[in-house]
Amino acid sequence: MPSERYVYSLKEGDGSNRLLLGGKGANLCTMAQSGLPIPPGFVITTEVCRKYMVNPAIMDEIWDDVKASVLRLEKETGKGFNDSKNPLLVSVRSGAPISMPGMMETILNLGLNDETVKGLAESSGNKRFALDSYRRFIQMFGSVVDEVNFDLFEGALAKTRKDAGVEQDYQIPAEALEKLLVEYKAIYKKSTGNDFPTDPWIQLRRAIEAVFKSWNIPRAVTYRKINKIDDSLGTAVNVITMAFGNLGNDCGTGVCFTRNPSTGENKLYGEFLINAQGEDVVAGIRTPMPIAQLEKEMPEIYKELCTITSNLEKTYHDMQDVEFTIERGKLFILQTRAGKRTASAAVKVAVDMVNEGLIDTKTAVTRVSPEQVEMLLHRQIDKSAKLDVITKGLPASPGAGAGMLVFSADEAEEWARQGKPTILARPETSPDDIHGLFASQGVVTSRGGMTSHAAVVARGMGKPAVCGCEEAVIDLDKETLTVGNRVFKKGDMVTVDGTTGNFLAGEAKMVDATFTDDFKKILAWADENAKLQVWTNADTPEDAKRARDFGAKGVGLCRTEHMFMGVDRLPVMQSLIVALGEAGEDGKKARADALAKLKVMQKDDFTGIFKAMEGLPVIIRLLDPPLHEFLPKEPNVLEALKTATPEEAKKLNNVLEKIHQLHENNPMLGFRGCRLGMIYPEIYEMQMNAIFEAVVELTKQGVTVKPEVMIPIVGTRAEMKFFREMADRIAAEVKKATGVDFSYLVGTMIELPRAALVADQLAEYAQFFSCGTNDLTQTTLGYSRDDAENKFLFQYIDKGVFKENPFAELDRDGPGQLVKMAVEKGRSVNPGMSVGICGEHGGNPSSIAFCHSVNLSYVSCSPFRVPVARVAAAHAALGVLK
Amino acid sequence: MPSERYVYSLKEGDGSNRLLLGGKGANLCTMAQSGLPIPPGFVITTEVCRKYMVNPAIMDEIWDDVKASVLRLEKETGKGFNDSKNPLLVSVRSGAPISMPGMMETILNLGLNDETVKGLAESSGNKRFALDSYRRFIQMFGSVVDEVNFDLFEGALAKTRKDAGVEQDYQIPAEALEKLLVEYKAIYKKSTGNDFPTDPWIQLRRAIEAVFKSWNIPRAVTYRKINKIDDSLGTAVNVITMAFGNLGNDCGTGVCFTRNPSTGENKLYGEFLINAQGEDVVAGIRTPMPIAQLEKEMPEIYKELCTITSNLEKTYHDMQDVEFTIERGKLFILQTRAGKRTASAAVKVAVDMVNEGLIDTKTAVTRVSPEQVEMLLHRQIDKSAKLDVITKGLPASPGAGAGMLVFSADEAEEWARQGKPTILARPETSPDDIHGLFASQGVVTSRGGMTSHAAVVARGMGKPAVCGCEEAVIDLDKETLTVGNRVFKKGDMVTVDGTTGNFLAGEAKMVDATFTDDFKKILAWADENAKLQVWTNADTPEDAKRARDFGAKGVGLCRTEHMFMGVDRLPVMQSLIVALGEAGEDGKKARADALAKLKVMQKDDFTGIFKAMEGLPVIIRLLDPPLHEFLPKEPNVLEALKTATPEEAKKLNNVLEKIHQLHENNPMLGFRGCRLGMIYPEIYEMQMNAIFEAVVELTKQGVTVKPEVMIPIVGTRAEMKFFREMADRIAAEVKKATGVDFSYLVGTMIELPRAALVADQLAEYAQFFSCGTNDLTQTTLGYSRDDAENKFLFQYIDKGVFKENPFAELDRDGPGQLVKMAVEKGRSVNPGMSVGICGEHGGNPSSIAFCHSVNLSYVSCSPFRVPVARVAAAHAALGVLK
Repeated sequence: MPSERYVYSLKEGDGSNRLLLGGKGANLCTMAQSGLPIPPGFVITTEVCRKYMVNPAIMDEIWDDVKASVLRLEKETGKGFNDSKNPLLVSVRSGAPISMPGMMETILNLGLNDETVKGLAESSGNKRFALDSYRRFIQMFGSVVDEVNFDLFEGALAKTRKDAGVEQDYQIPAEALEKLLVEYKAIYKKSTGNDFPTDPWIQLRRAIEAVFKSWNIPRAVTYRKINKIDDSLGTAVNVITMAFGNLGNDCGTGVCFTRNPSTGENKLYGEFLINAQGEDVVAGIRTPMPIAQLEKEMPEIYKELCTITSNLEKTYHDMQDVEFTIERGKLFILQTRAGKRTASAAVKVAVDMVNEGLIDTKTAVTRVSPEQVEMLLHRQIDKSAKLDVITKGLPASPGAGAGMLVFSADEAEEWARQGKPTILARPETSPDDIHGLFASQGVVTSRGGMTSHAAVVARGMGKPAVCGCEEAVIDLDKETLTVGNRVFKKGDMVTVDGTTGNFLAGEAKMVDATFTDDFKKILAWADENAKLQVWTNADTPEDAKRARDFGAKGVGLCRTEHMFMGVDRLPVMQSLIVALGEAGEDGKKARADALAKLKVMQKDDFTGIFKAMEGLPVIIRLLDPPLHEFLPKEPNVLEALKTATPEEAKKLNNVLEKIHQLHENNPMLGFRGCRLGMIYPEIYEMQMNAIFEAVVELTKQGVTVKPEVMIPIVGTRAEMKFFREMADRIAAEVKKATGVDFSYLVGTMIELPRAALVADQLAEYAQFFSCGTNDLTQTTLGYSRDDAENKFLFQYIDKGVFKENPFAELDRDGPGQLVKMAVEKGRSVNPGMSVGICGEHGGNPSSIAFCHSVNLSYVSCSPFRVPVARVAAAHAALGVLK
Repeated sequence: MPSERYVYSLKEGDGSNRLLLGGKGANLCTMAQSGLPIPPGFVITTEVCRKYMVNPAIMDEIWDDVKASVLRLEKETGKGFNDSKNPLLVSVRSGAPISMPGMMETILNLGLNDETVKGLAESSGNKRFALDSYRRFIQMFGSVVDEVNFDLFEGALAKTRKDAGVEQDYQIPAEALEKLLVEYKAIYKKSTGNDFPTDPWIQLRRAIEAVFKSWNIPRAVTYRKINKIDDSLGTAVNVITMAFGNLGNDCGTGVCFTRNPSTGENKLYGEFLINAQGEDVVAGIRTPMPIAQLEKEMPEIYKELCTITSNLEKTYHDMQDVEFTIERGKLFILQTRAGKRTASAAVKVAVDMVNEGLIDTKTAVTRVSPEQVEMLLHRQIDKSAKLDVITKGLPASPGAGAGMLVFSADEAEEWARQGKPTILARPETSPDDIHGLFASQGVVTSRGGMTSHAAVVARGMGKPAVCGCEEAVIDLDKETLTVGNRVFKKGDMVTVDGTTGNFLAGEAKMVDATFTDDFKKILAWADENAKLQVWTNADTPEDAKRARDFGAKGVGLCRTEHMFMGVDRLPVMQSLIVALGEAGEDGKKARADALAKLKVMQKDDFTGIFKAMEGLPVIIRLLDPPLHEFLPKEPNVLEALKTATPEEAKKLNNVLEKIHQLHENNPMLGFRGCRLGMIYPEIYEMQMNAIFEAVVELTKQGVTVKPEVMIPIVGTRAEMKFFREMADRIAAEVKKATGVDFSYLVGTMIELPRAALVADQLAEYAQFFSCGTNDLTQTTLGYSRDDAENKFLFQYIDKGVFKENPFAELDRDGPGQLVKMAVEKGRSVNPGMSVGICGEHGGNPSSIAFCHSVNLSYVSCSPFRVPVARVAAAHAALGVLK
């Protein structure tokens, strides 16, 4: 395929083409071409990876290009591949279009063999360094390319340290390393049956293939699933000349963020190690120094680094995460990418950058993800509460979480499925623990720093993390965490406070988050850009008020059934149910009495919520659940009957009879919602009266009320007509009786497939729709949520039947199609009618993007999720959320 | 509105425009214009009725036309309206576009008052007749137009008979009638507050309005609902000169059918009375003479009648139901219409008329309705069984039915809803009993003949009826039926045999119907015209064989779950369920053992059904219900535990644990169908192996087998892919192991809304679809069938939310839309793929018409309904069923 270009040198590659060159490769090209000190190298495109997955023979096709590129590196560096005097060594790294830090494989020091190692010793003037590089290379190549058990190498290394009487690897003398190399090669041969490959070209080819293959290793697949990254993108491979940070004390390596990734403060932030290679920083084995220290150690380098990082922000208009190496006093930038940051840092960086003129407000909104907004709303430990602090570590990822101690990622995931909150405790975490971090409420580690794996991943996920609790001894076999003489076992309740670094016994009292001014700015900018309004689901004036503070523009769902559950109310409701359908005057009187009492209570409920939402629309849904939910459980009645007086027994038997009469095999699909209102109209009439009387009372007080009456589980035109006429009749009666005029709307839920299919018929009588996507998902998929989640749904997600739980993220092909149909059919009859969504999906970003795309009027979600939804709505309108 | 024509004389009206003139009016016009002896008259159009419903002032607009028409009648007859010498009298009758016999009002003898009655006496030379006509008129007008209680008149009449010492009305002497008239007018005045109207013009106007109003009386509305007649059609009004059958013994009146409406025999059939008015025949008060007797009584008239009826058949190409009156030796035809007939008569008439060249075979097929086919399949009393005959009446409507005695139509309906079969017993029935006749298994009356109300209606509905059981005393107050000293109470089981006229105690043994050659011809002609194929739902070889005899072209649904319910199988299934998901070797072995046993049994099942359907396709659905359906009920296990040995207790506790583990709140939406197959693939693998091994065995025997594997409850592409691949893999294994090649298809049910919504995705892997409209109706409407039918569905139908039970007749707006979508989306990916339906709707004529309209490939129904479906499919294709 001569027309296709598979390999680009850093001087040639198009820095804007991340899809082709990967994020890392594109950035290296951009930087190299803008004159930054980048080690020479080249990029093999993601296209090759995609082809490799289908047919590995693509390697033959690209090989001439790779060879030519290596020859160019030889020219640029003056070194030679397989040159036993002055050998050219390279790193071979993955680089996906979307960053997947630590997920795929990397091989360093490639090009070494028994000959070139001598040349490296000579050219570097440091034999120990050369031998150590060779040792690292064999270990990395062996485990990554040929799957030699990493622990075999580590065991030999530990034994060498012990024999040499030293504690750290860098203290091992050259002679010991020479012996160790022999041993390493023997391990390799024993495991693979082959000699360690000495030809650098074979090393290079096999390393490139290993990187391609690592696209599909389980932890990478998991990461893509969690982060919704397309599996078909593939990774590029970056082949870059090695720069060495471990040639002596004028060398070093580090990672820095252009701003503080925890707080967003505009100050260089990071860590470095003198005389070390990059993975020493990331792996958390040696504790690195803060970047500020570099100013003292190497002031010129520090100054150069500051200039470069500042320019990088100007180039990329975003905070950067930069890897660098200092080789004998020369600074090399190895990589730059948008820096991961905490939610609060994201907010501060975005607002600061607007102030600094680096970005506009639209861009600022896109810099704070809905998930980050959710994190900002995470609760914090109540500082006034008495705390039982077990120990303290690094405040690696802010926020607080409580849960039961578990010691494996698998267990964290398993317990999460059972609905149990967990805190994952590990000496340190690795990419294999991703799913456990995701499932837990927080993580605690006994080793590692602020840029250790646990810290970076937890910040990305917004999970609280306390890292490097050095006092804590975590025993994975015994499943205990011990601090001094306090021993915590699996299942013990603990709290991590990633804001302070405290690790606490028990479940600490927490308080709600507060909104910073910066955060309020982001939310305001979000509203400026959103098309969807955000309303809230609220059953109480308190909830409504909170949601209003969070920016809700209406109540999209006020459920009335909980109002009957209070201790003063349930008995009245039960007496109504027993009297329903009873013939004769007695039954009639009992019904009327109960309804009169309930009306007074309901009117109070509605007055409260209308007041809290003064001037904004409030949708009140009439009684929805089946009546048996208000009755006691049969065994309880039978128990009570045992000791009842004859009079009590009579009552109890009436209740018992009703329980039997109302029993259903599939209550979800039974006698509920407007079906009750149709057969026993007196209940809905009472509720409508209570609503309209509350409206009148507030109107008289000068309070502006916008009531909307919502009928649940409507599936037919006849039902909608019946209740619209009922509402109009009762409103007219109330207006006539009180002499007070008011306006109101009558509408319905769309929560049955039939309702969506006949939305045009419903729209003849309905003035608004609200899509109840919880029930709509149940009926469209034929899943009872509880039963499905207990029996098969999570296994379905594991097997890829669904990418996400359809009860959390709206299933677009199923209920989503019906929502779209409801909008289109409804508005075909009633143009411009308001159509919203009030299922749990109303607070889920992906579902909100869908709601935007089908032109819903608003989403309604729980008060706590209102800010999340506001940002998601803006992201949808700005096209960054789809 | 001068442009609109509201009134037509019989000489003018367009006999083909039944919509405008009503059936009766149109036929009268046709007959009058073809020279038949029709009394002069005119028709007021249905358009007037429709306008009258909205605004009664239309009467003013049409009044000049009515007047002019009456003047024309005066000219034609030489009589005068309100002429005290020779008065013109008219009948005012309803006449809807679609016949609704006996449902609406009729007024006879209109034009009489204290003056004209004298003229009638004079002109007829019969004072008694004139007075009696006047009496009838007051009674009819009073009760129909002014709602005077009919019984008040009847009471006075009875007293007059008693006082006169006579038994029959016609024996009352003129003097007594004169007194009775005074009393009748007093009754009228007391009830209405007004004098009886003497002005014939006022009489006419009010009678016309009364007929219009009778369109909406409850029995008429019920009739239209049952017969699916559009409520908006309205009725015409026929104003026809009176012809009198009661002027003496050279007069008479009768009803005749051009062929025998019970058997179809081509011979004039009917009844007449000498010296009587028409309603005397219909009301069943005097027992009429068979029409053959007329040949002896009035041979000339009989000959004329035979000629006229024969010509009427040639005009209308159908059997006619003719009303006639003989006035002083002159024959008048009062009405003709297509005659109602029994199902077997319909078949014979249709085939005979083809043989006679009166109609073609297409028309013949349309002359037998699917409902009539159903009746032909009604079971008959087994003649070899010992029968307990209580009494014998007229064999008024053929077929046999058994049920519990009830004495009111309301009760019959109520019990039917509770699923109880009933036999309705009444002295005689009236149009107010329609709903009870509809709900019962049959009817028995103590009075009335073959053309009595009960007989006519029962034949129309295909209900068995025994009429005129004169020995039976039916006491409606005591709710007893007494014959001699045998007393039957409400709830007693009885049988009516409408074929023989026997009324029997208990539930008589019945046998299946046999197919006549004529019936087979109709079915063959149906197949020639149908586009839809008819398949059957059959779980056993016996069912499959029966359905094949009935003309089924395949098995559309063979359920496998019943195969596990046998006494030898259930324990094996239960041991499998207990072992499912059990870890370790023991669990594995227990599963393998149970599956091996089940496979042998299943293979046998499949071999049987494949053989029975040799050469035709057989769709086998894999396991569908939730597993807990195979486990015993919890209370039974708890009971058994009380007396169990320790070893038994262990087993029982395992079962108990499984019962709890598998418990679901909404099992309809739970862990069933392919969800089981996904989590426990071993079950479906076993079933597929059994299917393919059965195929191989039969193939070796030279039997042609067309197996189709159907996956239940599929809702996603991933599920369909998984099971298609499973089937292909297992088929390949079986082929390899046996060396026998065979073909097969893999498809899915469409029974979830999501399946229809993503039918294009499913069609990538599914080779056929079968719409399971029972479950699809449940999920689309959100109705659990049992719960809905027990709680609210029938009230919903009463309230008009649904016209029909959506579980009996496919709801086109709901699941119907989804079926259509599944066909279109499926075939968009997989053109020409077979799509059928296998819910109960597959045997329902209206639903079959819908299936035809959306281009389904076949309908599959229970064996018994296959002939019904064949005819319905033809009617759909011929456009007479929509």
